[in-house]
Amino acid sequence: MINGEKILDHPIRWAMVGGGRGSQIGYIHRSSALRDNSFQLLAGAFDINPERGRDFGIQLGVAPERCYPDYKTLFAEEAKRPDGIEAVSIATPNGTHYEICKAALTAGLHAVCEKPLCFTHAQAKELVRLADSRNLVVGVTYGYSGHELIEQGRQMISHGDLGEIRIIRMQFPYGAYASTVEEKDPAAKWRMEPKTAGPSFVLGDVGTHVLFLAETMVSDFKIKNLLCLTKSFVKTRQLEDNAFVLMNLESGAQATCWSSAINCGALHGQKIRIIGSKASIEWFDERPNQMSYEVEGEPVRILERGGAYLYPEARREDRISGGHSEGLFDAWANLYRRFAIAMQAAGKGKKVDFWYPDIHAGAQGVKWVEKCVESAVNGSSWVDYN
Amino acid sequence: MINGEKILDHPIRWAMVGGGRGSQIGYIHRSSALRDNSFQLLAGAFDINPERGRDFGIQLGVAPERCYPDYKTLFAEEAKRPDGIEAVSIATPNGTHYEICKAALTAGLHAVCEKPLCFTHAQAKELVRLADSRNLVVGVTYGYSGHELIEQGRQMISHGDLGEIRIIRMQFPYGAYASTVEEKDPAAKWRMEPKTAGPSFVLGDVGTHVLFLAETMVSDFKIKNLLCLTKSFVKTRQLEDNAFVLMNLESGAQATCWSSAINCGALHGQKIRIIGSKASIEWFDERPNQMSYEVEGEPVRILERGGAYLYPEARREDRISGGHSEGLFDAWANLYRRFAIAMQAAGKGKKVDFWYPDIHAGAQGVKWVEKCVESAVNGSSWVDYN
Amino acid sequence: MINGEKILDHPIRWAMVGGGRGSQIGYIHRSSALRDNSFQLLAGAFDINPERGRDFGIQLGVAPERCYPDYKTLFAEEAKRPDGIEAVSIATPNGTHYEICKAALTAGLHAVCEKPLCFTHAQAKELVRLADSRNLVVGVTYGYSGHELIEQGRQMISHGDLGEIRIIRMQFPYGAYASTVEEKDPAAKWRMEPKTAGPSFVLGDVGTHVLFLAETMVSDFKIKNLLCLTKSFVKTRQLEDNAFVLMNLESGAQATCWSSAINCGALHGQKIRIIGSKASIEWFDERPNQMSYEVEGEPVRILERGGAYLYPEARREDRISGGHSEGLFDAWANLYRRFAIAMQAAGKGKKVDFWYPDIHAGAQGVKWVEKCVESAVNGSSWVDYN
Amino acid sequence: MINGEKILDHPIRWAMVGGGRGSQIGYIHRSSALRDNSFQLLAGAFDINPERGRDFGIQLGVAPERCYPDYKTLFAEEAKRPDGIEAVSIATPNGTHYEICKAALTAGLHAVCEKPLCFTHAQAKELVRLADSRNLVVGVTYGYSGHELIEQGRQMISHGDLGEIRIIRMQFPYGAYASTVEEKDPAAKWRMEPKTAGPSFVLGDVGTHVLFLAETMVSDFKIKNLLCLTKSFVKTRQLEDNAFVLMNLESGAQATCWSSAINCGALHGQKIRIIGSKASIEWFDERPNQMSYEVEGEPVRILERGGAYLYPEARREDRISGGHSEGLFDAWANLYRRFAIAMQAAGKGKKVDFWYPDIHAGAQGVKWVEKCVESAVNGSSWVDYN
Repeated sequence: MINGEKILDHPIRWAMVGGGRGSQIGYIHRSSALRDNSFQLLAGAFDINPERGRDFGIQLGVAPERCYPDYKTLFAEEAKRPDGIEAVSIATPNGTHYEICKAALTAGLHAVCEKPLCFTHAQAKELVRLADSRNLVVGVTYGYSGHELIEQGRQMISHGDLGEIRIIRMQFPYGAYASTVEEKDPAAKWRMEPKTAGPSFVLGDVGTHVLFLAETMVSDFKIKNLLCLTKSFVKTRQLEDNAFVLMNLESGAQATCWSSAINCGALHGQKIRIIGSKASIEWFDERPNQMSYEVEGEPVRILERGGAYLYPEARREDRISGGHSEGLFDAWANLYRRFAIAMQAAGKGKKVDFWYPDIHAGAQGVKWVEKCVESAVNGSSWVDYN
Repeated sequence: MINGEKILDHPIRWAMVGGGRGSQIGYIHRSSALRDNSFQLLAGAFDINPERGRDFGIQLGVAPERCYPDYKTLFAEEAKRPDGIEAVSIATPNGTHYEICKAALTAGLHAVCEKPLCFTHAQAKELVRLADSRNLVVGVTYGYSGHELIEQGRQMISHGDLGEIRIIRMQFPYGAYASTVEEKDPAAKWRMEPKTAGPSFVLGDVGTHVLFLAETMVSDFKIKNLLCLTKSFVKTRQLEDNAFVLMNLESGAQATCWSSAINCGALHGQKIRIIGSKASIEWFDERPNQMSYEVEGEPVRILERGGAYLYPEARREDRISGGHSEGLFDAWANLYRRFAIAMQAAGKGKKVDFWYPDIHAGAQGVKWVEKCVESAVNGSSWVDYN
Repeated sequence: MINGEKILDHPIRWAMVGGGRGSQIGYIHRSSALRDNSFQLLAGAFDINPERGRDFGIQLGVAPERCYPDYKTLFAEEAKRPDGIEAVSIATPNGTHYEICKAALTAGLHAVCEKPLCFTHAQAKELVRLADSRNLVVGVTYGYSGHELIEQGRQMISHGDLGEIRIIRMQFPYGAYASTVEEKDPAAKWRMEPKTAGPSFVLGDVGTHVLFLAETMVSDFKIKNLLCLTKSFVKTRQLEDNAFVLMNLESGAQATCWSSAINCGALHGQKIRIIGSKASIEWFDERPNQMSYEVEGEPVRILERGGAYLYPEARREDRISGGHSEGLFDAWANLYRRFAIAMQAAGKGKKVDFWYPDIHAGAQGVKWVEKCVESAVNGSSWVDYN
Repeated sequence: MINGEKILDHPIRWAMVGGGRGSQIGYIHRSSALRDNSFQLLAGAFDINPERGRDFGIQLGVAPERCYPDYKTLFAEEAKRPDGIEAVSIATPNGTHYEICKAALTAGLHAVCEKPLCFTHAQAKELVRLADSRNLVVGVTYGYSGHELIEQGRQMISHGDLGEIRIIRMQFPYGAYASTVEEKDPAAKWRMEPKTAGPSFVLGDVGTHVLFLAETMVSDFKIKNLLCLTKSFVKTRQLEDNAFVLMNLESGAQATCWSSAINCGALHGQKIRIIGSKASIEWFDERPNQMSYEVEGEPVRILERGGAYLYPEARREDRISGGHSEGLFDAWANLYRRFAIAMQAAGKGKKVDFWYPDIHAGAQGVKWVEKCVESAVNGSSWVDYN
């Protein structure tokens, strides 16, 4: 609960696969899931090295007997317990997401999965089918989609504050791989090799993040066709380190997306601007507590997270009043809170009335990367989306 | 632990007084203390209404028998248990801090106390004496003093990057009380009445926050004399809603502080600029992930939280890499992490080698308010500090 | 001269065609040309209405007998005078630029021409041939290309501060035509009709401006092929009100350009980011006195116009020391100063050693629009540039 | 005229004293006076070295016989001509302003004088008496007071948009003199020596600039008493290089002013924030085309120079539409335009209905410095203003 609000009958019984000692992403999963008592960490297979994983689990307060050597044992043993886990978070390397997520769904567990959900659209459809048929929730951690101001954007657009949506400008261009850092840093290497990263480097690594912000805010975001221009500016790389995408949407709107790992000087750089016939909004993840709202012909307004003038739906997840800053961890915690509510509802055969990045959202990212790559290998030509 | 780093033998056994359902400040205490497994919430007297407090505690996972009706019972009963609490956080109205903190120390407990610690310098000295004589830790939650970039500022100054410190400009002027909101909002009223707020409104409510940022960063911040000009711009208020302070420091530096609750348009506005003979730094709490570093004659540099170029001491509490944003909750979590380490060290008769807002810091805030008020009532004349 | 520096033997004897009473563009031409005594306004055909033009010229201090009814009479009569004009500025509607510029060159006059120089690449080649064969200067008023920080960018790139240039991001998207303002404002209408505006609205109206900034800063900016996606979001318009362009350069770099007249909330929005293998720079025309310089792995630096750390070539046109702001008028005055020096040098058969937007630059803009339109009408396919 | 608007019967016949070759301030006076044909430069005593001054005047197009060796000859000889000058601008070292201005007024000339008008309040009163008795205009070049957004602030306040004015925060702290640059740069030395600079360094050099912005915007800005804390942080200096001022106004509002030459990293830094009971405005001279407008409880709005939503009085001096930037030169040109209109009106025995920094404004700055210095030398005690 945020600030003592009761939203669950009981905390979801929860385990992790991966995310062990030294894992940045494992830490943010736990910080978020445990933040509001929505989840209770009861089991795990935290590490490829069982001994190290067990030691880490115990340190986290997990019972020794529920620290398992691998995900298969985890799912099998927990299934035997009357108080076994209800949900699992998957924070392992990209190439293993598909098999673990599939196994979790098969075991009847709700899941939270790091993106990308899988590497091919065919795999994604398989996971969607599994989840839908068993009425299971799969949350995908597109972190900033949980930010209060993204919800505000969604509300503004659905209330017509921007008029008809015309243009969506997306970018997520950072600079950390401007030189061959992978030669010295093995941790960097997996992001840019097909075996571990899938068919794309920057489209999948960062482009899908900002794509999801667009999908979150613009409810009729449906791509008609697209064109993608990629390049490996660092020539030794097999996968692209920069990509530009042009998109025509079914609605008649147009969208662009720039993904890059060689944008010198940018630490992160996720930014989205949505232009309607009456007004635009713009949001930037390095100053996430402010959003620009620009009605044509009027002074630009700076909306602040927590501002009393925001839509009630946006303020539902206020953790502290405006002026105080919230960051990435708080946006993630909002997502985990929504996942928990959705999981509990699913257990009762119900649907929730709010948005969260679910398995359809995850599948859409996989398809988008696939289509972008298809365009790029075909001389950056136009590709139909459906 | 942050990201799986082991810093404690065991989580500190912990209780809360106050901070019950609907309390914003209680929520941030729990979010911070529980974030990194540094504390374990085992008991509490969460509410002035025992029934409501008990219900709330149970919802938080506290055993029913350890949800106590009041702080006196809490301290007495826990003292009888072999697994009784080691520390308590005090998140009650200002006027009760002194008596509860004194009782906690007397009961041999470490404490974390909301500011102000108490209302008079004499009370503060009493608490300091108690804590020091019993080797107990009292942490005071000046939240942003735990921010990574504030530690960076501290390191820069101690390494001489700014040269000799000349001027410190502090401000914490927000606008929420520009009109008589207290007439409709009883929750606002207590901040501006002597009985509940103490001898000052904005000096104590917000001025001390930014004063602590200065003390954190400038290690020889010692006031020689000061002058304070206050006013209640909303005339029905007994306490000041705006204050300007001028200070001469022992070192020859000069400092100013502007505190306000009537600065229309500012949600928060805590800002500090420190000017040395070589360079200045400036930090603003509404965009806390950036700090300006301005070497005279060179282009202004924007330091980013998490930047690889920061001092190692500043990056010690990185929760996520640069470009991602951290907010107020993360800064608070850093403080609670330091409190835990200090409490464990104190239990072993040791001191820690890092800075945190301790009882001396808390006492300093009380004294500063007292001296400012003394100047203000004496026609805004100069007052010696010692 | 700036600040008393003597650069000319005598001020250039100068006339204007167009730019009469109420013309915003005529005013900026005069403000710039007369600013530093580089030009002397001696004649003109200021208005399509001869009487009104004559009255206006007299008010400007032009001798009545040198206020001519039209440009043909102006060129013919001035040619007869021993003290006749040496140069003419053309500030008439777009559709007349070609014929007037051609007539000026034929009359042996140097010219300053508003962009676009003409409507087709064939026309542009004709003007280039004329100017080159007669050793005449044609300056094109891409205003901000004269800004000190653009010169700084040019110097940084030529000195290798950015490393190898990889990506150039250009945009000039404003919002004033988000709705059908042309229905009420006839002055807006000519910009978007083929007869008066040429083959394009926003590509020619604003896209070429930022294209020139790129060409100014990146000396080997040569397009290999490009693709352009256009749309008229306001459906009653014949010409596009939004355009996205992707470009591959001969050097292996990639460039993008976004031009728009429907970007709600943006007054101007001309921005350019140049990314090299070591660092990036970014400049925005609404805050033109600052440029961001971002070395990968270091804090972002904010370069200020007038800063002592800028390259000497950039500071050559300082009109006032750093910290004081210069604006569009000052950038224009820099251009006119360079035009004057180049005209004087041409009269002596010499070339100047500095950059300015000359007839080749003007011709390049015309060709670029032509190629973009060619791509757009061919289903936004790739078009070879040469 | 701006953009062809006719405001004068004829351009004012004008001369300069000082401001010769290499003078930055002379250049800005000429750029501004000549910009809109409001003044015509016909005579001058441009340099302490008559030969050099004559040469420079001729280069500017002044007739050789009207380039005089000194100001006394200038005034005497011009008085004999039927077409003699009507006004003179004084751009000489501070210590000479009083005598030259007095001589100009005595000769029946309107004057434009660099600040400070003089060194003592007694001198200022003498000049006021002279000007008023002879119905002569004296304009003082507080440059940014001519900026369109300052006029917008003035209009907003007079229309009640801010409510009752409560607090005025002024600052003009730059960093160029953080070290002993005067040892190497003789041009810096005169600013900080009593003989040439008067009784104050930073209060007079920069503090009065921002004081005038306050007086321009807040029409009932009347000081009741003040207190000033000064220091020479560079110890070899006789005059202060930093000053803090607190002021109580007659209206009940309070004001503060920080002036500094040792604020490392700031190139200029002139900033003003005016807080009313309903809203605040804030303006910063390093990004002069934007002003923040902050209604309590609403999103901050960014007003842009040239915006169609500004008050008509503010847009009266638009030189170009919004989005394009104007800078210091344009603000100065606005002042000179107002001086010209006021001079013409005075010649007809009329007053103008707009604000400009006149001799009363100039005298006020001199008095303010005098009172600040009086407080500082009396142990930074409170000093009555009248």
